[in-house]
Amino acid sequence: MSKKLYINIIALILTSCVSNSRVEPELITPNLRETSRALQAVALADTTAFERLAELCDTFGHRLSGSQSLEDAIDWILTEMEADGFDNAHGESVMVPHWVRGNEELHMLEPWEENLAILGLGGSIGTPEEGITAEVIAVSDFEELARRKDEVLGKIVVYNAPFTSYGKTVTYRYRGAIEAAKYGAVASLIRSVTPKSLNTPHTGGMTYADTVKKIPQAAITVEAAEMLHRMTKRGQAPKLHLKMEGQTLPDTESRNIVLEIRGSEKPDEIIVMGGHTDSWDVGQGAMDDASGCVASWEALRLIKTLGLKPKRTIRVVFWTNEENGLRGGKAYAEDHKDENHILAIETDGGVFAPEGFGFTGPDDMREKLQQIASLLEPLGAGKIFDSGGGADISPLTNAGVPGMGLRVDGSTYFWYHHTAADMMTMLDRDEFNKCVAALAIMAYSVSEME
Amino acid sequence: MSKKLYINIIALILTSCVSNSRVEPELITPNLRETSRALQAVALADTTAFERLAELCDTFGHRLSGSQSLEDAIDWILTEMEADGFDNAHGESVMVPHWVRGNEELHMLEPWEENLAILGLGGSIGTPEEGITAEVIAVSDFEELARRKDEVLGKIVVYNAPFTSYGKTVTYRYRGAIEAAKYGAVASLIRSVTPKSLNTPHTGGMTYADTVKKIPQAAITVEAAEMLHRMTKRGQAPKLHLKMEGQTLPDTESRNIVLEIRGSEKPDEIIVMGGHTDSWDVGQGAMDDASGCVASWEALRLIKTLGLKPKRTIRVVFWTNEENGLRGGKAYAEDHKDENHILAIETDGGVFAPEGFGFTGPDDMREKLQQIASLLEPLGAGKIFDSGGGADISPLTNAGVPGMGLRVDGSTYFWYHHTAADMMTMLDRDEFNKCVAALAIMAYSVSEME
Repeated sequence: MSKKLYINIIALILTSCVSNSRVEPELITPNLRETSRALQAVALADTTAFERLAELCDTFGHRLSGSQSLEDAIDWILTEMEADGFDNAHGESVMVPHWVRGNEELHMLEPWEENLAILGLGGSIGTPEEGITAEVIAVSDFEELARRKDEVLGKIVVYNAPFTSYGKTVTYRYRGAIEAAKYGAVASLIRSVTPKSLNTPHTGGMTYADTVKKIPQAAITVEAAEMLHRMTKRGQAPKLHLKMEGQTLPDTESRNIVLEIRGSEKPDEIIVMGGHTDSWDVGQGAMDDASGCVASWEALRLIKTLGLKPKRTIRVVFWTNEENGLRGGKAYAEDHKDENHILAIETDGGVFAPEGFGFTGPDDMREKLQQIASLLEPLGAGKIFDSGGGADISPLTNAGVPGMGLRVDGSTYFWYHHTAADMMTMLDRDEFNKCVAALAIMAYSVSEME
Repeated sequence: MSKKLYINIIALILTSCVSNSRVEPELITPNLRETSRALQAVALADTTAFERLAELCDTFGHRLSGSQSLEDAIDWILTEMEADGFDNAHGESVMVPHWVRGNEELHMLEPWEENLAILGLGGSIGTPEEGITAEVIAVSDFEELARRKDEVLGKIVVYNAPFTSYGKTVTYRYRGAIEAAKYGAVASLIRSVTPKSLNTPHTGGMTYADTVKKIPQAAITVEAAEMLHRMTKRGQAPKLHLKMEGQTLPDTESRNIVLEIRGSEKPDEIIVMGGHTDSWDVGQGAMDDASGCVASWEALRLIKTLGLKPKRTIRVVFWTNEENGLRGGKAYAEDHKDENHILAIETDGGVFAPEGFGFTGPDDMREKLQQIASLLEPLGAGKIFDSGGGADISPLTNAGVPGMGLRVDGSTYFWYHHTAADMMTMLDRDEFNKCVAALAIMAYSVSEME
């Protein structure tokens, strides 16, 4: 959009505000309300950021920690930030884990032959080179596994645990290999952690215990987990051949990206907002979390483009290695621990239609944020929810920094989460632009708070 | 369910009918209404058929024409029909096409390296053994391809045609390879024909023309088609490596399955109903169309179990080779052309919540069917829609037999259609049982019509 068009939009908004006579919340000055409307208008009319997001995703693809594509994407982002006219964009070095998937395959040998969709879980060891061939024991939960522990030796455990909530069901992803190995299983397969599947496996992080033998672990689809479970209940004895090449290489260097508009009055008071540059090694990591990064970046770009001079510093950070290490979030908090962060905002729940912000922090700040949130009502995002935060800002919020997370209509979020379907296709430009507007208005308004 | 329980259910229904005083449509005798209620009650309480459907799907998997799994499934079905106490279940020989997929892979080489999900289309030739490596030309439709014909030579055409309706969009699947080859393309990739994708490719039939060079054709996901299209619009030049081993072998023998309850008064007047045993070679063909077969079979089994003696013959047929040849439907119509089919009912649109039946036939029969449909109102299936039929019964209806198709809420049908996600998981037992009830009541009621 041209500068002239921006000015026209602002002029239009100012005109339309003259007769506004409703009672304003205390903090919302006429000036702030007008600025908010201008930010909203330019955000909603924008096509630049969504196209930039697509270019990022299409040019570099997924971006797992340790991959060249992550570092190439970081280089490109820094160059683009300079092209936006920012002169302080820079990378801050972070050592990150380097797990590689390699090839993997799951072949059902009995009762009929079929290649089943599979995604090894991040951090899993591989199988021996010749693979593992074994019968299946399928269970609904850890309790059933414990009850049937005498049947486990030498088998592949299939956890057919239905999705209840992410928090509950993800337990099988994290601890599945440990519990299965305790009883002598040779591998562990979890039902993908999702309420909806079109034969879509979901990867994600997992853990091993020092005291328990490591066995390979992968996710299979909801459909396959249910099928294998039905087969075993019926007395059929499905036999599987599993081959995985996952391995963990030495840590490599990555970078957090840091970009800011320095505050005009209180530069030492910092509002930080952002998402994570890395993704799992499938799809494009478009939703998780290129979109959270580009939305935060665009929010700052629009503040700059409108010529606004925030009183406090508004800083955008793209953390690295959120998915399998959180090293970026931890490094940022450590490297910047002497700075005064007054608020940390994370966007890592998708850029669907925004509903508001979750907030964890002092009551007096919540009251102010609730006033600011009234500015987001035209976006449908006028609510401040009870708790807010996110993985990347958790090292900050654990140290007492007030935390926020953009809240969106996440009803289909887990359909795409950590899958090859996390591609540009599932994003909507209008919803994305609303998220940009909400972030821009929130960050700018907090920077202006008395 | 035990015979005793059936009798109890019927007794209960008879008791509850005594005070029913509403005006009945002319055809609906009190006796027919009571029988309809009994059929509904036993169908809705049943677990046998849904479990049998799962066993069929889990034991044999998908069932493409020419495969051993199709013939094994047919053998099993015939044995199970005998176990049901039917003494006339038999196979009728049909020669069917025998296309085999072999291995296939699509690798994006530039701008980044990635294996893309792919499903070769049924009937496609393979690539040379070393595969095909070429750049992409992506288009929205045939018109754009024709306009840009000078850019096509030596390239892989990607049709990124959005789903509007199945009938319209499937044109690209059928004719994509022909149109692309006309201008010198080396292969054709279509966007999967679906309104929804979780990185899910959809296979299906395709055609070649005698006058145009045959080139390999496969379906890619909606996500990949959109991505490749964006890349080319942006001036990036995606390069793909495609390898397919598809080939057509000599025709092989398969069978239609025929099973009936012979009419007690007019045995020569036949109501035929059924679905198709074969499926594409992915998933389990649970929805398409094991469910249509087992629902029809169960409808007949319940009529028999309740001890009903239909006046006319009710015949269940499972046609073979619906997906890539329609040889079963053609052979049945030819082999039985001297018989008097008074109605043909096909179930091949999924067994979601039933809404009624589509009907194509004489007006006086439609009036009678509309009266019968009032018996289906408790199932939510009381409508007779304007046109009805289906591929397998089309050789009958083309010869003048009135045709019906079970109508269901098909809003998500194409999400699963011809994919590896067509598994038991996407079926719902209660919806399936309602379809069984609707089929049983419709077929029995037509057999009793004056």
